[in-house]
Amino acid sequence: MSITLHTCEQLDAQDPLRSLRDLFELPEGRLYLDGNSLGVLPRATPARVAQAVCEEWGQDLIQSWNTAGWFELPRRVGDKIARLIGARAGEVVAADSTSINLFKVLSCALDIAAADHPARRKVVSERSNFPTDLYIAEALCRTRGLELVLLDATALEAALQDDVAVLMLTHVNYRTGAMHDMAHLTAMAQARGILTVWDLAHSAGAVPVDLHGAHADFAVGCGYKYLNGGPGAPAFVWVHPHHTDRFWQPLAGWWGHAAPFAFTPHYQPAPGITRYQCGTQPILSLTALDAGLDSVLAAEALGGMPALRRKSLALTRLCMDLVQARLGGHGLGIATPQADDDRGSQVSLTRAQGGYAIVQALIARGVIGDFRAGDGATQPDILRFGFTPLYVGYADVWHAVEQLRQVMDSGEWQDPRFAKQHAVT
Amino acid sequence: MSITLHTCEQLDAQDPLRSLRDLFELPEGRLYLDGNSLGVLPRATPARVAQAVCEEWGQDLIQSWNTAGWFELPRRVGDKIARLIGARAGEVVAADSTSINLFKVLSCALDIAAADHPARRKVVSERSNFPTDLYIAEALCRTRGLELVLLDATALEAALQDDVAVLMLTHVNYRTGAMHDMAHLTAMAQARGILTVWDLAHSAGAVPVDLHGAHADFAVGCGYKYLNGGPGAPAFVWVHPHHTDRFWQPLAGWWGHAAPFAFTPHYQPAPGITRYQCGTQPILSLTALDAGLDSVLAAEALGGMPALRRKSLALTRLCMDLVQARLGGHGLGIATPQADDDRGSQVSLTRAQGGYAIVQALIARGVIGDFRAGDGATQPDILRFGFTPLYVGYADVWHAVEQLRQVMDSGEWQDPRFAKQHAVT
Repeated sequence: MSITLHTCEQLDAQDPLRSLRDLFELPEGRLYLDGNSLGVLPRATPARVAQAVCEEWGQDLIQSWNTAGWFELPRRVGDKIARLIGARAGEVVAADSTSINLFKVLSCALDIAAADHPARRKVVSERSNFPTDLYIAEALCRTRGLELVLLDATALEAALQDDVAVLMLTHVNYRTGAMHDMAHLTAMAQARGILTVWDLAHSAGAVPVDLHGAHADFAVGCGYKYLNGGPGAPAFVWVHPHHTDRFWQPLAGWWGHAAPFAFTPHYQPAPGITRYQCGTQPILSLTALDAGLDSVLAAEALGGMPALRRKSLALTRLCMDLVQARLGGHGLGIATPQADDDRGSQVSLTRAQGGYAIVQALIARGVIGDFRAGDGATQPDILRFGFTPLYVGYADVWHAVEQLRQVMDSGEWQDPRFAKQHAVT
Repeated sequence: MSITLHTCEQLDAQDPLRSLRDLFELPEGRLYLDGNSLGVLPRATPARVAQAVCEEWGQDLIQSWNTAGWFELPRRVGDKIARLIGARAGEVVAADSTSINLFKVLSCALDIAAADHPARRKVVSERSNFPTDLYIAEALCRTRGLELVLLDATALEAALQDDVAVLMLTHVNYRTGAMHDMAHLTAMAQARGILTVWDLAHSAGAVPVDLHGAHADFAVGCGYKYLNGGPGAPAFVWVHPHHTDRFWQPLAGWWGHAAPFAFTPHYQPAPGITRYQCGTQPILSLTALDAGLDSVLAAEALGGMPALRRKSLALTRLCMDLVQARLGGHGLGIATPQADDDRGSQVSLTRAQGGYAIVQALIARGVIGDFRAGDGATQPDILRFGFTPLYVGYADVWHAVEQLRQVMDSGEWQDPRFAKQHAVT
C-alpha cells in the first residue's frame, strides 16, 4: 500500500506529541530539517534571555551571581541534561564547548589508563567520527606519545585488544546517522580493561541514552542541536562517579575549585563533576540552553524519551520509504541504516556528486537540510535531513520528499545559481 | 582646599566624556561601583541580543552562520578588542574563558621555552595573582614537571634569572588595583630570554595597553568587566605574530583548523591567531560582548583610551582624597597605589576586619562595591570600588564616600543583619 499525503496527515492528527510543536517558533514558510545541526528557537526562550539581560544583568548586576543563581547554573542545567542521558542529578555540568569537554575527559581517561595499564599506548576511534573529536584526540596523543588508531565502524570490535587504553566514539554518526550500540561496545571494551568516552552530540534529546545502564566511563555532548540551546550553546560533560575524583582534569580553573571564593593560591579540585568546570560560563547562552532543555523535557508528560524515540523512528522510516518509493532513478542512495536499532534521528541521502546544488535547490524551495561534501571519489556527497520529533511532523516529511522529487525530476538543481560558489558552513 | 559636592558636580559638568553615560542602563536608585567585576548593561545590548535570538536564530537558523557572520564573530569581536590593547586587526580572537585561553597560551609559551631553552624549569608569577591563573599554571607545571614560583610583586624583577621559562602576570591586580609596568617587566624578562604572558582582565577597556609597544609575547583577558560584555561573556586571546605558528595550542578543535569545513580527519592548524580557537562559540553571549565593545569604542570619538584614562585617574584620585579627608579614625587604609602610573581603575580600601559587613551596609544604602576576604591575620579585608570612566561620574564618587562615612560614623555596619551568613560570590 503506497503512502499518501493523506496518510501522513492522519499520522499527524493521531500523534500524541503533536502539541509539543506549539512550543517552538518554526521559521515562516519553511520546512526546517536541520535540528541535528541547530535546534529551532523555543517560544519561551526570547523572554527568558531578555529577563537575563534586562533584569538579572541590567538591574541586579553582580548580585545575580547569588540571587539569580548564575553560579549554580551549569549544575542546574546539567541536572536537566542528566534526565535525558541516564545520568543522575549532580553528575553533569553544562559548560564550555564539546571539544573542550572532550579534552578534559580524554585527558582524565588517559591519566587513569596510564596509572592502571601503563603499557597501553593506543586510543581507538572511528575514522568518520566528527573531526573536532579526532583533532582533540590527535593533539593529546601527540603530547603523550600515544597512537590514535582510526578505523571503520565495522573494524572497531576486533581492535579492542589489550594494547588499547581508551575507546572514544561518537554515539550517532554526524554524516550518516548510524548509531553505535553503546552498551555492547562498552561491555566489549570493559572486558578488555578499556575505558570508554562517548560523544552524545547527536544523541542527547534525540535517542534514548542510558550512561549508567551501559556502564559508560565518560561522556560529553552538545547543547545546540537536539537540546535547542541556541547557536553555540554551552556543551556538557559527564564522568562516572567512580572516576571523577581520581585525577585533576587539566583545565584546572577556579569554577572547579573546592572553595572558589576562598581565593587560595593553590588548586584544590572540588569533588565530583564540579571539578570538570573551569572558568566563568557565558550566562546568557547558558540561560538559552536552560530554556531549550525545558522544551525537550516538556515531552516527559507525554511519554518522554521513549515516545520521542518512537516518533523519531517513524519519521526517519517514513522518509526512507518515501525516498525509495518516489525518488528512483536519480542516483540517490541512503546512507542511514535501515534497522531501527542502528540509526539516530536523521536521514542521510548519498549522491556521487551534485549534493551541494541539490540541497541549495531545496533551500530555495524552503526545505532546509544540509550538505556534507564527499571526496569526489569513494566518499559520496551527503544530503542530511534531521527529524526532531518535538517539532517535525509526518506531513512535513511528505512535503520534503515531494520537494526533493520535484527538484530532481525537473533537473532544476543543475541551474548555475545553485552551483557551489564558496566554502559552505 | 577641601573638596565639596559642588566641586564634583562642576567636574561632571565639564567632563568631556559625560555623554557616554547615556549609553548605559544604570541600575535605578543605586550607585554601581563594581564594573571591575561585571560591567553594566549598555542600552543597545538588549535589542542586539533580541535580534540574534529572534531573527538570526529564530528565523534564519543555520544560514546565520554565513548571513549573520556567526562563524567570523570571534575574529570580528577580536578586532574590536585589538583597538583597546595595542594589537593589530587579525591578531585577537574572542572565545572561551580567560582560564581556558590562559591554558592555551601558557602551553604554547612553555612549548617555545622547551624548544629554545630546555634547561629552564621555572614559571614565575605573583602570589596575589588572580587564583584561576595560578591554578591553570599549577596544573600545567605539574604535568610538565616544572616549578611554579609565586612571589610578592616587589620580588619579581630579581627573580627574572636564566632558569625562568615564563613570566606570567596579571597587569592590574584584582585585589589592590596595583598595576605592573608591562613594558619594563617585559623588557627585563626579554633581556633574560624569558617569555611573558599577560592577563589583561582588569586592564582592557580600563587602562591604556600597548602589547606591541611593550613587546609582549602572549595576552589574555576578560569580556565581562570593563568591556561590558555581560555575565560570563567570552574572553579573548592575543599571541604575538612571531609566536602564533610555532606550535599547536593543545585545545586543537575544529574552529582552529586551517579548513574547518573540509572535515578532514587530521588536524592542520590555521595560521595566525585563528588556531587559538577551539570549538563552537556561544553566539548569544558573543553578540552581547560585541555590543559591549561598541559602548567602549564609543569613547574613540571623544579622545579614546587616553581620555578614559585621564578621567579614571581623576576618579580614583578623588576617591582616595575623599577617604583620607573625610574617613579618618575608622581603621580604613588604602591598598591601591597613590602614584598614577601604578594603579588601574579601582580603589581598594583595607580594614583588618569587618569588611564584609561594611560592604553589605553600603549595598543596603544603594552603593554597590564588593568584598574580598582577608585571612584574618596579615592580609586585611578588601573593600573594592571600581570606577569605570564610561559611566561613573565625580559626584558619584562623592556620594559613595559620603555613604561610607555615614556607615562608619553611625556604626550601622555592626548591625547583625550585615554579618556574614554564607560564602559570598
